[in-house]
Parts: sequence; C-alpha cells; structure tokens
Amino acid sequence: MSQIKRVAIVGGNHGNELTGVHLVKKFQQYPNLINRASFETLALLGNLKAIEEGKRYIEKDLNRCFTNQGLQNPQLSSYEDKRAKEIQQILQPPNQPFADVIVDLHSTTANMGLTLIFCDMHPLLLRLGAYLSSINPLVKVCINQESKENGFLRSLCELGFVIEVGAVAQNILNAELFQKTEQLIYAVLDYFEECNQGNIPQTSSPLTLYKYIGTVDYPRSSGGDIQAMIHPQLQFRDYEPLNPGDPMFLTFAGKDIFYEGESTVYPIFINEAAYYEKGIAMYLSQKYQEIV
Amino acid sequence: MSQIKRVAIVGGNHGNELTGVHLVKKFQQYPNLINRASFETLALLGNLKAIEEGKRYIEKDLNRCFTNQGLQNPQLSSYEDKRAKEIQQILQPPNQPFADVIVDLHSTTANMGLTLIFCDMHPLLLRLGAYLSSINPLVKVCINQESKENGFLRSLCELGFVIEVGAVAQNILNAELFQKTEQLIYAVLDYFEECNQGNIPQTSSPLTLYKYIGTVDYPRSSGGDIQAMIHPQLQFRDYEPLNPGDPMFLTFAGKDIFYEGESTVYPIFINEAAYYEKGIAMYLSQKYQEIV
Repeated sequence: MSQIKRVAIVGGNHGNELTGVHLVKKFQQYPNLINRASFETLALLGNLKAIEEGKRYIEKDLNRCFTNQGLQNPQLSSYEDKRAKEIQQILQPPNQPFADVIVDLHSTTANMGLTLIFCDMHPLLLRLGAYLSSINPLVKVCINQESKENGFLRSLCELGFVIEVGAVAQNILNAELFQKTEQLIYAVLDYFEECNQGNIPQTSSPLTLYKYIGTVDYPRSSGGDIQAMIHPQLQFRDYEPLNPGDPMFLTFAGKDIFYEGESTVYPIFINEAAYYEKGIAMYLSQKYQEIV
Repeated sequence: MSQIKRVAIVGGNHGNELTGVHLVKKFQQYPNLINRASFETLALLGNLKAIEEGKRYIEKDLNRCFTNQGLQNPQLSSYEDKRAKEIQQILQPPNQPFADVIVDLHSTTANMGLTLIFCDMHPLLLRLGAYLSSINPLVKVCINQESKENGFLRSLCELGFVIEVGAVAQNILNAELFQKTEQLIYAVLDYFEECNQGNIPQTSSPLTLYKYIGTVDYPRSSGGDIQAMIHPQLQFRDYEPLNPGDPMFLTFAGKDIFYEGESTVYPIFINEAAYYEKGIAMYLSQKYQEIV
C-alpha cells in the first residue's frame, strides 16, 4: 500500500456543529496534538461565515458543493460555492501533494454515537473501521455509496470520510462527546501512522457495517406541513432493529403510524434537525458482517 | 378573586422551538381541545417569519420586545418590534377584554423538564404551581423577578407565565415532551376552569420554588471566544445542587474549573444553545419551600 502523506481534519463544514469547530480550533492552537512522524496533518475550518453566524450555512449547504461540475464552474457566486473552491485549493493545491485523507467532523441531533461514514468499501477504510469499532463499541461504520455525486467534501479524495457525533443539539458543545471525538481522531491518526510504518493494527472480530438503503420522510399534509413526529419508541434508537409493524411515527392527533416494510431495517439519523427541510425523518440501513 | 375571562396560549415566540409551534397549530385546528366553559381561549403563533425560516428570530429576539417603551415607539422598524405591537393588539385589543392569562410556550436544550417561569409571587400562580407540581414531579417552578423590564411577552399581563420544556434540540420535535407539554396545558386550563367555578384545587404539600439569583458566563478569551464547556458532571443536571468546589466547566485543554461560590446553588438553563450569544452558560437559582 502507498504511504499516506497528508491528512486534513475539517470542522465546521456546517457552521452550527460546534464539536468539530472547537476541535479544529484546538488543533490549530496545539498542532503537536495532531502531528505524526510520517505524514503532515492540516486542521481547517469549513464554512467560516456560517460558523460566525451560528448557522448550518449562509446560502446553501457547503457539504453539497463539492461536485466536479460546481468546482469547475466559475459562474457560481454563492458564498458556499466560492468557499468550496477555496477549500479545494487548500486541500488539493496545484503542483503540490494532495491531501490523501480527509476527516470531516460533523455532529447530529440523532443518537449516532461516534459514526464513521464512508463513500465506498475501500479496504483501508474498512480495516480502519474494524479496528476503531473493536477498541470502542460506541464506534459504528456506515457506507453511503450514493455520495460521490452528492457534492460531499469527503468525496474529494479516495480516503475521505465523515465522523458524525451525537446526539448533540445544534449550537451547543457536549463536553463528553467532545472528548470522545478527540480521542477517536487521535486513534485515527495513530492508525495511519502505524500503517505508514508497516505495522497495520490487526483485528480478529468481523466488522459490522450499516449500508444506506433509502430515506423516509415525515407524513406531511398536501401543503407540505409535517403531520407527525418520530415515535417515542423510535426516538434515540439509531442502529436498533426496526421490524415490520413497529411504531415509527406519532401523529399530532396521537395516532401511531407503523413501519410497513417487509423486512427488518436499521434506522439512522433519526430526527436530525437539519433534515426536516430535506424531507428526511431518518435513513434506513441494512446491517452486514464483513471479514476485513 | 376575580374571574379569568380570556387565556392566550402562544407558541413560536422563538421560531426554532417547535414544540410550542406545533401545539398551537394543533389547538388552532382543534379548538375544542382548549375551550373551557367559563373563559375564552386563544391560540396564537408568535414570530411568524422566524417560524417559517426555522430561526430563533429574524432581526432581534421577539421575547425582548415587549417593553412599554418599545411598544409605544412607532419608530422601531425591525420585524420583531412590529410583530410585538401586532401581538399586543391581538392580546389587548382597545375597548375589548384583555387576555388576563398568557401561557408562553418555549423549549430549551437544557434539561429543564416541564418548568413554569413566573415574573413574581402572584398567589394564584403560586397555587397553580403547587397544584401542577403535586400531580407531576417533572413540573418545576421558577421565579425570575427581574423580568418586568426585560420585554418578555409574559409581562404583558399579571398572570403571564412561561412553560419551558427540555431537553430538546432546536428545530426538532420530541414526541414524548410534546405530549407531556400538551397534558400540562390541559391541566392549566382545567385549573383555571375550576377556579372560575369556585372550586380551587387544594394541595397539601409545600411548593418548591427556584428563584433566579444570577447568571454565569463561559470562561472566555480576551477576544470573546469561549475557552471551556459545561463540565460533564454538570451537563443535564438542572435543578440539582451545585456545591462550592464542584466541577462547573471543562476547558478545551481538559482542565476542570470549579464552582467558587460560598453556598450551594441550583443551576438551571445549563447549556442552552440560544444563551451562548447572550453570555450565559447557566442561571443560578436558590431553592425555597413555600406554603401556599
């Protein structure tokens, strides 16, 4: 395997997700924490204006702006389209070494623990996920294979991935999750350092993977207003099995709405605040065991 | 005691606090739920534009705009200053009966359960608080006596108060808290109905009151950046005693900061998202027992 030369840690891709913002500020202040002998590490803030204003974004979601088309289009004038080009220039400067790893730090109001989200089944990432989840049961691994065309920051390089931490409200810091995320980042950097030294940490247990299979919206009126809430029996139950006939939503009038699928699924991103506007009440995933 | 004639229930005074928004929409759709024989009930949305945009406010905090000075000043041109005047006109129309009760529905990222916040020690409100906390231990009663000059909506009438519900993130609905808040509102309306009928519900147990004594900001740099988070041992511990020497904050560098006061206090609004910009990490309160 080729050596990893440059690792970028990005926080505040969404401006109201404070865990990543303050971790990156800490790493910028104390670079020794993220320096490793065999590669360069860069800590970068994403949506600067949105961070300042405590918003997810100013005009559009920065983490949907990293499409090839958008990055090559000089006409796009929104703050986020311009910032995406700046970030690409920093991470992939012309005639200089590219960042070959991007760790994109996010937080969520869903109870996702410490989730790693990969674009594909890259063997190195799968081994990383297997190792991290073997040393910390709070670590889960998701595969979202659709993501290449969605303009996610992590799609800029082959070894790009998201760390998604929750449950934590937007615009607050949860000290316990902050510290767990920090330790997870150090474990990631140490893993790459070991790989570069030729000592790939081994894991004996199989990796549990959650693969995205689709989304479910809230029940809505013809005018688009939501008519129901996540059911109390499903709230905060990310990664737990949802079986046909289990309650899924509770209408404002107090009526249960049940899951009508034909097989067991594993909901994630349940009740993420930023997804109401995207028409997503939760993602559904399937669970796999993988020997890596 | 004089009869209560008109009760107003306001949701979405802050546009990103969805529990109140959707309860008021439900009451507008099914007015029978809040109608009682002896008084009129009105359900009203507060900051319409902010609700639409999923923000706390557009230009300034609507729930600081209800000062006498502001309401009488025709020069003020912000959306919220104008909306405050509209709301006053609806609740206190000229030559018509005033709303003599205002129930202002809020939610918070702090673990406040179902909190009633009163401006003063009005005997009817204290009896209401004693009754509600006797039938539901999740109900807490706070007194914020400073509030008359602060421009809070509830200060428009003598029997104005806030129901503050949490912990729930901004811009999401928590079905369990939605239903508990709904039941609490019905209990409030039933209580007023009984009062009007001359059957004031009796409570034998004393009322536990939490009186605001001040605020504590996050430790900050000279530039104003926060330097620490709520300590994991204090997070979600609203209404629990904080003793001199107990940990209060954890710096980003990992150092504990301790409470240095001279006596036990009871922190509330711990880690409320909207208060970072106000320079408030938590309110401190003192606990009293009151026979009502």
